[in-house]
Amino acid sequence: MTNEEILRVTVLNSWKLAINRLGMTLSELSDEQLQQHVAPGKNRVFYLLGHLTAIHDRMFPLLGLGNRLHPELDETYIANPDRVVADRLSATELRRVWSEVNNRLIAAFERFTLEDWLHKHTAVSDEDFAKDPGRNRLAVVLSRSNHMSYHLGQIILAHSRH
Amino acid sequence: MTNEEILRVTVLNSWKLAINRLGMTLSELSDEQLQQHVAPGKNRVFYLLGHLTAIHDRMFPLLGLGNRLHPELDETYIANPDRVVADRLSATELRRVWSEVNNRLIAAFERFTLEDWLHKHTAVSDEDFAKDPGRNRLAVVLSRSNHMSYHLGQIILAHSRH
Repeated sequence: MTNEEILRVTVLNSWKLAINRLGMTLSELSDEQLQQHVAPGKNRVFYLLGHLTAIHDRMFPLLGLGNRLHPELDETYIANPDRVVADRLSATELRRVWSEVNNRLIAAFERFTLEDWLHKHTAVSDEDFAKDPGRNRLAVVLSRSNHMSYHLGQIILAHSRH
Repeated sequence: MTNEEILRVTVLNSWKLAINRLGMTLSELSDEQLQQHVAPGKNRVFYLLGHLTAIHDRMFPLLGLGNRLHPELDETYIANPDRVVADRLSATELRRVWSEVNNRLIAAFERFTLEDWLHKHTAVSDEDFAKDPGRNRLAVVLSRSNHMSYHLGQIILAHSRH
């Protein structure tokens, strides 16, 4: 394998590992358990799952991969804190949307060459990118991976009470 | 900048961002707050900081960067759950050791070339690495970054109660 191939595999595996860890935890939580708060007075697991789904869905335009699949999630799970706007999806629907968004992202990441990973994301101008080429798709995905792990650490607190 | 340089900057920035986020949160927590549990019956922040310090310290031999600085942390913060073995460091000492370990790791990462990042880690045999070159230093550091974010998500729950 060339260095470029090894890099692509390493980055892709790291992303899939984080997605799969969250997926495993979700599969062990009942729909009722999704309604639990991660700690007294804190977000529900359901809210965090909606939040992660919305943030990942935003990666389609941010990475130049096309339109979002579920912009309707933002009002409840990004623009507002938990329990301000009612959930409009059932647990079954939210689980399905989470998988749909992430399966499609992974399909795109699997086709990325090294050049694709180092391409600028769409929230940075050509001028700013010329000054700081670190503002690329890889940086976005590493950041989203940490963000997902951050909330998984919280979700697991609700999970392990049982 | 060459693709190799951009990659190095992107990976290094991602690591530093996660380290700095945790550092910021720690700087906002008093020594007394470090003794708080992240949720009722869960780990203390102090334990999680000891745990992260020990895991990061283990990266020196794992990445082939030399001997560990603080192997004495393992018994309390890796081998046992919280509150089984007494803390042997004060909060001031633990904060200092956390910085010491991470400053030295970052100094090493700053010197890594792309070849260095894709070099095998020391817990994999030459044979296994030949079969799966994804088991490299970059994979370890991406994994540790997610691990750190996972526990930061928990630590923040204790922080935001104030």
